[in-house]
Amino acid sequence: MNRTDIIDIIDGTHPTAPRWPAYAHQGLIMLSAVAIAVETEPGLPPLVRHALFAFEIFVLGIFAAEYLLRLWLAKNRWRYATSFWGIVDLVSALPLFFVLSSSWAALRTLRLLRLVRMLKLLHTNRAMLRLQKALEQTRGELAVFAFLAAIIVYIAGVGIYTFEHEAQPEVFSSIPDSLWWAVVSFTTVGYGDSYPITWEGRIFTAAILFVGLGVIAVPTAIITTALINADLREDLEDEIEGDIRRELKKDLGPLTRKPKRRK
Amino acid sequence: MNRTDIIDIIDGTHPTAPRWPAYAHQGLIMLSAVAIAVETEPGLPPLVRHALFAFEIFVLGIFAAEYLLRLWLAKNRWRYATSFWGIVDLVSALPLFFVLSSSWAALRTLRLLRLVRMLKLLHTNRAMLRLQKALEQTRGELAVFAFLAAIIVYIAGVGIYTFEHEAQPEVFSSIPDSLWWAVVSFTTVGYGDSYPITWEGRIFTAAILFVGLGVIAVPTAIITTALINADLREDLEDEIEGDIRRELKKDLGPLTRKPKRRK
Amino acid sequence: MNRTDIIDIIDGTHPTAPRWPAYAHQGLIMLSAVAIAVETEPGLPPLVRHALFAFEIFVLGIFAAEYLLRLWLAKNRWRYATSFWGIVDLVSALPLFFVLSSSWAALRTLRLLRLVRMLKLLHTNRAMLRLQKALEQTRGELAVFAFLAAIIVYIAGVGIYTFEHEAQPEVFSSIPDSLWWAVVSFTTVGYGDSYPITWEGRIFTAAILFVGLGVIAVPTAIITTALINADLREDLEDEIEGDIRRELKKDLGPLTRKPKRRK
Amino acid sequence: MNRTDIIDIIDGTHPTAPRWPAYAHQGLIMLSAVAIAVETEPGLPPLVRHALFAFEIFVLGIFAAEYLLRLWLAKNRWRYATSFWGIVDLVSALPLFFVLSSSWAALRTLRLLRLVRMLKLLHTNRAMLRLQKALEQTRGELAVFAFLAAIIVYIAGVGIYTFEHEAQPEVFSSIPDSLWWAVVSFTTVGYGDSYPITWEGRIFTAAILFVGLGVIAVPTAIITTALINADLREDLEDEIEGDIRRELKKDLGPLTRKPKRRK
Repeated sequence: MNRTDIIDIIDGTHPTAPRWPAYAHQGLIMLSAVAIAVETEPGLPPLVRHALFAFEIFVLGIFAAEYLLRLWLAKNRWRYATSFWGIVDLVSALPLFFVLSSSWAALRTLRLLRLVRMLKLLHTNRAMLRLQKALEQTRGELAVFAFLAAIIVYIAGVGIYTFEHEAQPEVFSSIPDSLWWAVVSFTTVGYGDSYPITWEGRIFTAAILFVGLGVIAVPTAIITTALINADLREDLEDEIEGDIRRELKKDLGPLTRKPKRRK
Repeated sequence: MNRTDIIDIIDGTHPTAPRWPAYAHQGLIMLSAVAIAVETEPGLPPLVRHALFAFEIFVLGIFAAEYLLRLWLAKNRWRYATSFWGIVDLVSALPLFFVLSSSWAALRTLRLLRLVRMLKLLHTNRAMLRLQKALEQTRGELAVFAFLAAIIVYIAGVGIYTFEHEAQPEVFSSIPDSLWWAVVSFTTVGYGDSYPITWEGRIFTAAILFVGLGVIAVPTAIITTALINADLREDLEDEIEGDIRRELKKDLGPLTRKPKRRK
Repeated sequence: MNRTDIIDIIDGTHPTAPRWPAYAHQGLIMLSAVAIAVETEPGLPPLVRHALFAFEIFVLGIFAAEYLLRLWLAKNRWRYATSFWGIVDLVSALPLFFVLSSSWAALRTLRLLRLVRMLKLLHTNRAMLRLQKALEQTRGELAVFAFLAAIIVYIAGVGIYTFEHEAQPEVFSSIPDSLWWAVVSFTTVGYGDSYPITWEGRIFTAAILFVGLGVIAVPTAIITTALINADLREDLEDEIEGDIRRELKKDLGPLTRKPKRRK
Repeated sequence: MNRTDIIDIIDGTHPTAPRWPAYAHQGLIMLSAVAIAVETEPGLPPLVRHALFAFEIFVLGIFAAEYLLRLWLAKNRWRYATSFWGIVDLVSALPLFFVLSSSWAALRTLRLLRLVRMLKLLHTNRAMLRLQKALEQTRGELAVFAFLAAIIVYIAGVGIYTFEHEAQPEVFSSIPDSLWWAVVSFTTVGYGDSYPITWEGRIFTAAILFVGLGVIAVPTAIITTALINADLREDLEDEIEGDIRRELKKDLGPLTRKPKRRK
């Protein structure tokens, strides 16, 4: 067992070793996330509070130990220390050094950076890779969609301010306030903290919401198309190509040279 | 008519027998579900209450009789009694034995387990089979999506707690409370029981909601792709293959051997 | 100009005649719908109220005249009078005979049946036909989806009643009340008239909403697949087939017999 | 460098020149949009208010200068002045002449017309072109969808008025008021300003919302199909065609004449 093996075992990417150390590692990160959430609950009994604090120190200790281990095992220590993952590992262990300081409350959330580590586990996941590939191919379209959506939200905000400011000066007190309404309405969340009451405002809202229905269908369409592109096309081509080739081979004579595969 | 026939008639899967016993059976389960709901309505007249109680006993009696019938008819009684469906049938009839006990109120909802039986009817439905096949193929992708969604919700909850806790200590009193807000907002339900009021919180929410629009488009994309894969590809391939084969057959001479079909 | 021509002109399906009578007809139906809506507005000046009443009588008169005209022009009068459209035409004109009676208020909404007529105009619309074809093909799948959605909503309603009834006896007073919450939450409307406040209820809701995100993606997936099936496949096949045929024709010699087209 | 070059540099469509003038131009439009929003914020310190006013004059000055520059550079000045973009440029600079007049507050929003200019930048964006092409092809379907959605909303509004008017005469005071509820519910926004409380109204709403789930899936299906049509088909055909051609070329001999490409 060499150095890389140990890292692969921690990461769960080792081909033969048992995966429980990686799962334990991931579980610790998740428990740590739960602990951070529970700690903020007011009215916790002191015992639970102390237990959570102890667990926090323990997790930070593990993280620090892991950082040192990874640094020690790295082929090129400087490269690891300055890599994205190296910095994530360092920063998420850092709060340990501030346990007794007054900035403890603010700094301990740095530990959350550890969540990023969980994404690493997914890097070997086939489904994740396909999703990622599809999303990458659609970056251009999604950016265009975001731009169009931003313009519609801006127009919606300015419009509703024009129509509703006089009737509800408290609710639609300014365009930024109205933009908040526009975001909440366009995404169909609709908290109900602000809504139009004049007829002009309501008709304008109805128009914006119907346009919105079409616009928020666009990312779905984009991602679906990309997934199908990534997924269906290759398979379909390969199979059709294969069928035709097999067919022709039978009838026209042997094709001995494998034709060059398209990228 | 043999033993299996009777079970097939109850299940509605018999090829020739009339289907009304199965429909009556399903109808009883549905009526039972309605009765459970109506019983909880406060201020019902005693007459209705008694009628519903009588109906409840009647349905439980039918369920118990059905269980005994199935047990008696089963080829291997022990195997049926320990099978998934056997346990469902037993548990949903069990409340009959507690009618007069004090735990009646709690136990009668066990009858709801019967709803699971309705799914069995769908097992012969072609549309259901295609949907199920598509959903099974996408389990990996949907799990990845659920994981990503959970991370976004967690980040949203921690973020909004950071931004809003000071301004609304009652509403965003802890991270678990903020996670509730995050779930309600991310799924675009937006009850309106909690929403950000600070500018930092609102801008953060806008960003999360826009990312959310993209993320909740992902399951739609995944399921659509799977349905198309399951549905379109096979047909398309078959037809293209058929056309090409017919074409070639005409021009190049008869292909007598049927080529091996791909899986 | 014969009898059928006049009906075709009214319906806007005549190949050569101007289409303005059909548009005027449709416009009248739409104005009538607007008038019905505006009439209910409280605090209208008496003049407007009288004008709307006069317009209502006028529209009903036109509808009655149209019914008599259609009846007179029909090749087979009995068949028209008992057809779906004949009954729609009759019923939508009927309120005219109750103008002075006390049941006027209740009956005048029968006029709304006229809205169904507007759908007729769409019957010649190519986009509508494709949508309709796609939706018809997916009836089975959509029924299965509706069934699954109903089961989830029922489970959600019973579940939230179990978790929240004690904490909010006023809001979740019975299972039917809880089912209302379930419908509003599952469809992501979220009016905010009822929402869980206990931790059990909130965690249960989060689970239901996440499952819901996947489930409400299903109809989109079904309809998209059907549209692509109806739309893309035929075109794609035709073009690929055409290309291959052209290609082979060039290289292998003339194919004089047109191969039999598949249905 | 000739006249057209300068315009191309401003528009960012010049093939070789640096693009920063175009970006600066776009940035100015965006900053102007932000400034318009911030100005409406009540309680701004006078200093900020003055700075924003100065910035507004500055931006309007730039816009006016740009208009004159474009007019001067145009090959056909009259044609530019009467073109869509010419009018947009003129109108967005116009508020400058009313700075000191009392109609200043109303007119300065004309500057927002400048946002339309930003769309021009997207005209060279490949992703935008594909989206636009897909949306154009689906105009017919989207119009049919809008029509269907309008009918459903109308029926929902009239229905809920019938069911809820008596129980909530303040909330569902008229059909137009009920139509507002219908729009907010159908789009799943659900502000919570109005919702049914009677059982008839709730069951009707549940039915409408479930139908709505299917109907709002339609635009997604339409746009997805169009995107796939525009995107996948062409590529797929080209590649399959290419593969077959290459294959045949190898086996059957050189095809020197390029076959005519289909439109």
